[in-house]
Amino acid sequence: MQPDDSLSLESRPDRVGAPLVVAADGAFPLVLGLDTFGDRTSHELAGLDSHARTIRNVVEQGVLAEEVGIDFFGIGEHHTDEFPMPAADLVLSAIAARTTRIRLGSAVTVLSSDDPVRVFQRFSTLNAISGGRAEVILGRGSSVDSFPLFGYDLADYERLFEEKAGLFAELLKGGPVTWQGTTRAALRNQDVVPHTETALPTWIGVGGSPESVLRAARYGFSLMLAIIGGPPARFAPFSRLFREALAQYGQPSRPVGVHAPGHVAATDEQAVEEFWPRWLETIRRLSEERGFRVPTRETFMRDIGPDGALYVGSPETVANKIVTNLTALDATRFDLKLGLPGLSQRSAMASIELYGNQVIPRVRDAWTPSMLDTQADRPVHQA
Amino acid sequence: MQPDDSLSLESRPDRVGAPLVVAADGAFPLVLGLDTFGDRTSHELAGLDSHARTIRNVVEQGVLAEEVGIDFFGIGEHHTDEFPMPAADLVLSAIAARTTRIRLGSAVTVLSSDDPVRVFQRFSTLNAISGGRAEVILGRGSSVDSFPLFGYDLADYERLFEEKAGLFAELLKGGPVTWQGTTRAALRNQDVVPHTETALPTWIGVGGSPESVLRAARYGFSLMLAIIGGPPARFAPFSRLFREALAQYGQPSRPVGVHAPGHVAATDEQAVEEFWPRWLETIRRLSEERGFRVPTRETFMRDIGPDGALYVGSPETVANKIVTNLTALDATRFDLKLGLPGLSQRSAMASIELYGNQVIPRVRDAWTPSMLDTQADRPVHQA
Repeated sequence: MQPDDSLSLESRPDRVGAPLVVAADGAFPLVLGLDTFGDRTSHELAGLDSHARTIRNVVEQGVLAEEVGIDFFGIGEHHTDEFPMPAADLVLSAIAARTTRIRLGSAVTVLSSDDPVRVFQRFSTLNAISGGRAEVILGRGSSVDSFPLFGYDLADYERLFEEKAGLFAELLKGGPVTWQGTTRAALRNQDVVPHTETALPTWIGVGGSPESVLRAARYGFSLMLAIIGGPPARFAPFSRLFREALAQYGQPSRPVGVHAPGHVAATDEQAVEEFWPRWLETIRRLSEERGFRVPTRETFMRDIGPDGALYVGSPETVANKIVTNLTALDATRFDLKLGLPGLSQRSAMASIELYGNQVIPRVRDAWTPSMLDTQADRPVHQA
Repeated sequence: MQPDDSLSLESRPDRVGAPLVVAADGAFPLVLGLDTFGDRTSHELAGLDSHARTIRNVVEQGVLAEEVGIDFFGIGEHHTDEFPMPAADLVLSAIAARTTRIRLGSAVTVLSSDDPVRVFQRFSTLNAISGGRAEVILGRGSSVDSFPLFGYDLADYERLFEEKAGLFAELLKGGPVTWQGTTRAALRNQDVVPHTETALPTWIGVGGSPESVLRAARYGFSLMLAIIGGPPARFAPFSRLFREALAQYGQPSRPVGVHAPGHVAATDEQAVEEFWPRWLETIRRLSEERGFRVPTRETFMRDIGPDGALYVGSPETVANKIVTNLTALDATRFDLKLGLPGLSQRSAMASIELYGNQVIPRVRDAWTPSMLDTQADRPVHQA
């Protein structure tokens, strides 16, 4: 399938991009998305898939995501054998060429170790290819494999992100950019191409730092709360802080989203059976380099319960948890991070189908009438 | 359409990649490709197209190229308003998702101002997405807009390319890389993902420097002669030098290709009428920054004649010139650079159709029997 004809896009600039992130009255449509980190897939008969096959499997996941009605498909940059996904934008571009409706973005782009000019160029190109369906979620990188690979010092983590987020915000404005900093070459009245045709919605992924929340507000980015452990409700202060800070900085209202790991199967039991062994193995490996606490079956069952961060279970269980936490966090977007290294592609695809066909309709049905009323006052643009 | 199923690819590793660049007996299949620089297109009614529409038009050009039997579609990295193509790999990825046979590559990647690790990651990802159809043509960049944009000094042109080409050659070998240099951070036993599933054919684009020819031979890359002015035959010594140097460095035989600008229309007259005004305008603009001599109608007619560098004319004229020059240069690949800033998409698409449907069959028919005899001795893999 082909991207929309650009002439018709150009005559309807309000069709794409902006609605998901800008709303004069502060109401945003409910957006239910899917994230992957390019988790290395496996095949029942052949064992662990190659990097190349994993990448092709992710393309198929993205195409299926559109087919089952998912609003957004995100891919997180990673540089490891179990997440062989350093060029997520290329994979998104392949998905863009085979879809027409689903929004596509990074989840996250590790901006700290990249060049904001290159990132802008790549996502502006993706925005063109997809007919205005690209988004960027910028992160400092909780996965920091890219730092040694590209010669960055983790001690500069904060300065790198602050400067680069600032430059990215300048680039989004369009027009020639003049910029000076310490983390890349200065720009003097530099025209950076390709120019964006429609807004390129930009989020900052925040894992628990109030400074990051304030930064998102200051630059006018949207806020994506990455909640991968502990009770989701403890992020509610971030959501409030963000709204207050937006007002303080004179920025228009922006949506708040939640990104969290999970897995959907026909029953709670099956979901646990498929997810738990992989989860244990993955966290155990990551714990060595990133200091995560290795879960026990007991802590895991708490994590998938009402107060935990994981969305693992039947469509009903997962849908209820999404509604509860979106409400608690005053958020209008939820991106479920599906897949784990070693999980079979068949299981990943089944989970995507259940998420699209059974979780999303349940969440939409249960979505609060008050929010729907607010939206009824204006044209609703769903991704 | 979808990329080939990867399982079947994995069981037939000889199907893709290698045949175009490695042949024990020194014979290579004839490969006839198409290049673009993302030349800003126009529309008869609407005038100059936006950057975004130009990018979508290039995707359509690539899809059409496969449909009309062209072997390779290349996109050259550029960073300007008239060539808004800084992220050619994303555009190639979108084309990969909609094609199954055509090979896809850069033409060229400006390696001097990029990071070889990123370039490798992107093209290894493209190789995965396309089922082994990716190629890389590395260049120092005759178009040097990227140097100030990414903070490089043109005075370092030679050192940047030499070091980065060396690192790229290391990355192509697969396996952990240890490398130290002056142009990027050192790598210590670094695994760079995604691993390539099949060979990633790599060329060096050479515009007239014997050092570049020797470098291509030393690293075992193939040689792409970029002939954009003067009599093509004057490049024959480069072709000989390359073969001698490969032998001297103990490298296996590699193909030689030619990249040259052109335009195909139904008649010689129509081709000139469509191409000449745009060519004059483009070279006039470029002459200010790059010192090109502005053509006159007289010099232009010489350039499109038998001894000139341009392939502008009817299918018969262009086909004859390709056969003559491939023979003179002992080359087995020709990539016609089609399009010019401001040329209409309709005219570009018509030119692609004529190139695929009428030029390529003529070139294949006229291809020397001696070469075909050699190829008959072994399985012929055409892209």
